[in-house]
Amino acid sequence: LPPKAKTTQDEERDTQRLIAFSDGVYAVAITLLILSIQTPQLKDVPGNKLLETLFQQWPSWLSYILSFLAVGIGWINHHEMFRVIKRVDVTLLALNLIILLFTTIFPVPTRLLAEYIQDADGLRVAAVFYGLILTCLSFGYFFVWYYAAKASLLDQQLTPKVVHRETRRQALELLLGLGAVAIAFISPPLGIAVYLLLAMYYLFSGYSRRLAKPQ
Amino acid sequence: LPPKAKTTQDEERDTQRLIAFSDGVYAVAITLLILSIQTPQLKDVPGNKLLETLFQQWPSWLSYILSFLAVGIGWINHHEMFRVIKRVDVTLLALNLIILLFTTIFPVPTRLLAEYIQDADGLRVAAVFYGLILTCLSFGYFFVWYYAAKASLLDQQLTPKVVHRETRRQALELLLGLGAVAIAFISPPLGIAVYLLLAMYYLFSGYSRRLAKPQ
Amino acid sequence: LPPKAKTTQDEERDTQRLIAFSDGVYAVAITLLILSIQTPQLKDVPGNKLLETLFQQWPSWLSYILSFLAVGIGWINHHEMFRVIKRVDVTLLALNLIILLFTTIFPVPTRLLAEYIQDADGLRVAAVFYGLILTCLSFGYFFVWYYAAKASLLDQQLTPKVVHRETRRQALELLLGLGAVAIAFISPPLGIAVYLLLAMYYLFSGYSRRLAKPQ
Amino acid sequence: LPPKAKTTQDEERDTQRLIAFSDGVYAVAITLLILSIQTPQLKDVPGNKLLETLFQQWPSWLSYILSFLAVGIGWINHHEMFRVIKRVDVTLLALNLIILLFTTIFPVPTRLLAEYIQDADGLRVAAVFYGLILTCLSFGYFFVWYYAAKASLLDQQLTPKVVHRETRRQALELLLGLGAVAIAFISPPLGIAVYLLLAMYYLFSGYSRRLAKPQ
Repeated sequence: LPPKAKTTQDEERDTQRLIAFSDGVYAVAITLLILSIQTPQLKDVPGNKLLETLFQQWPSWLSYILSFLAVGIGWINHHEMFRVIKRVDVTLLALNLIILLFTTIFPVPTRLLAEYIQDADGLRVAAVFYGLILTCLSFGYFFVWYYAAKASLLDQQLTPKVVHRETRRQALELLLGLGAVAIAFISPPLGIAVYLLLAMYYLFSGYSRRLAKPQ
Repeated sequence: LPPKAKTTQDEERDTQRLIAFSDGVYAVAITLLILSIQTPQLKDVPGNKLLETLFQQWPSWLSYILSFLAVGIGWINHHEMFRVIKRVDVTLLALNLIILLFTTIFPVPTRLLAEYIQDADGLRVAAVFYGLILTCLSFGYFFVWYYAAKASLLDQQLTPKVVHRETRRQALELLLGLGAVAIAFISPPLGIAVYLLLAMYYLFSGYSRRLAKPQ
Repeated sequence: LPPKAKTTQDEERDTQRLIAFSDGVYAVAITLLILSIQTPQLKDVPGNKLLETLFQQWPSWLSYILSFLAVGIGWINHHEMFRVIKRVDVTLLALNLIILLFTTIFPVPTRLLAEYIQDADGLRVAAVFYGLILTCLSFGYFFVWYYAAKASLLDQQLTPKVVHRETRRQALELLLGLGAVAIAFISPPLGIAVYLLLAMYYLFSGYSRRLAKPQ
Repeated sequence: LPPKAKTTQDEERDTQRLIAFSDGVYAVAITLLILSIQTPQLKDVPGNKLLETLFQQWPSWLSYILSFLAVGIGWINHHEMFRVIKRVDVTLLALNLIILLFTTIFPVPTRLLAEYIQDADGLRVAAVFYGLILTCLSFGYFFVWYYAAKASLLDQQLTPKVVHRETRRQALELLLGLGAVAIAFISPPLGIAVYLLLAMYYLFSGYSRRLAKPQ
């Protein structure tokens, strides 16, 4: 398709509403994660054991932080992609729902990982499940980007080179994610460490601002 | 009523705030659905049974996906209608509350369907209840659209033909929904399959972008 | 204070952010209410008793509808007030927090009313408690409006007459609310009926659009 | 870095989206707090004991109010800072996630404080834990402000003097917070009183509007 001449005001508003709705979902999803952390209760844990019990809850907190990063980085990713996606059509709305679906699912793998982190068999299942959700989410981001590029919904100021580089980068991320799941299957604790490392890498490398327009 | 000459800036802002509030409700409702999925706990399910237990939870996931689609498609529908609704009045605010009421109710039929999917008697009740909520929601959308058309709140660029076609389409959807409830009463599993098929149809047919203005 | 000459772009943005934050709180609060309705579980309620059990849950649904209306009407009220409040200052931000505080509290009186509706002693406590929350909320709206009027934060196009009429109306609403609480203390069921009637009255009377500017 | 000449429309939109996402998180976090208050149930508490039981829940309400103020004041603080932060970069997005992380955590210390307020040993742990979360949150705000000032992301109309005064003020707040935690360690009830006093001070002192631009 040839790129359309210019984004109209209505197209602009449509895109803004998709962004606003997605922002809402990200905001709720990232905040609901805390419900996966159970607070000790006086009838089970006397006050003089409270500190010890809180420290024993480290798996819940580790799992919470990991999921908070996953959703938070997902939001930054969405934010970056929609800086250059200038129009939406119904297919993009549907593909965006895939991203939102796997974003809202996070409370489940989060609690599962926290619950089974100290059980060898259970940890393998929980770590692979967690990784598969991460991978599905990456597929969602990939589909949205790939479709937006194919359907000429991107900012026209973006050079084909930048678009191709970004497509490659997203495909590479998918492969890295699948690799991490394979590692988690072989060694669950190592797999979780790789998930965390990837999150840190995405957060602090020049990952973002990668879609800068020429100025 | 004769259509008003032009949308003022204040009318525009009023409409935007209704949209923003509705978007917020949709975002929370779609994200809360995940709370209907219970995570296995180590004290009930040892690690070596975890995978099996996760597969046995398929009714919860089916129900979750169905409700995610229902709320997500509802949002797309709302999005499409409010692309052409250019003004709001107090009656429209109240009618919009009906849509939001039946959107926020979804966690209840979702959990009910997941809980009783493997009990013949219970499934009939749960499937019909689910369908009635879907139908009430469709009535909500219909009322908002019908009132907006009657009260001249629509974009003036919309031809009467497009408005009539949309009214007919929404009425047809209501009938399809009522038909699906009847099927669910006779054969609950078939009814649920019809709900899913309708959702897929709405999502991927040329359903959306139906209110395109002449250009 | 003399009214300031004109709303600047920064003041406009400040007001919009307060509105956006409040909309978010209303959206979450209205959606969380559904969590107060407990879904029957297969282990407690066999499938052939499900329909009966759902009908027995009517107090939960009554309570849910009442609270949905209270928060929804509150949103319409907030919407109407902030159509004419054109500037915010730190005191208004703090007063607005009072409205939000009593809006987010609703899940508690909602569940309480549902739980104790069939216990004579408990119903009196629950109904009066419910009414006191409603009254505190009305005080919140009153304070915001009264302060905005005093501190010259209103749209200058609003005539003093309209402002006074609105202040009187809000004061009257406070008195009506206090009256309803008194009725609920004497006869709890009657009190709840009055809460519902007042909600219907606010929703469908010419309650809204009351702050229309002269055109 | 020398300040950039002028905020472009794209930079403006980027900043607005960070604000919208943060507003969403604040709105959900402040509303979820109510879930920490447990409603008495008829099977545990007969109707004629309900009033007494509600009064016995004062620790939950105290804790709820404290956290509501903490999140609400945090929002006002965020609001004030982003009135003058005119551009965002990827580091600021990541630092902002720290603020959001410690804002979403609040349900946990809130429930903990309510649960252990009447147990001497437990209260010490809960009060110090609460204060540490508050302190981490203050560090988040400080980092965002400090980085925004260093990276020239602030409104250019802001004089260096105002920027320095604000940096000092935020550093002082950090020290006050650490002092309060120390007090909570020595005397938990006194510490909680200090938290409340600080909240009141921040809410009603000329705390806000401190970043006013010269006019």
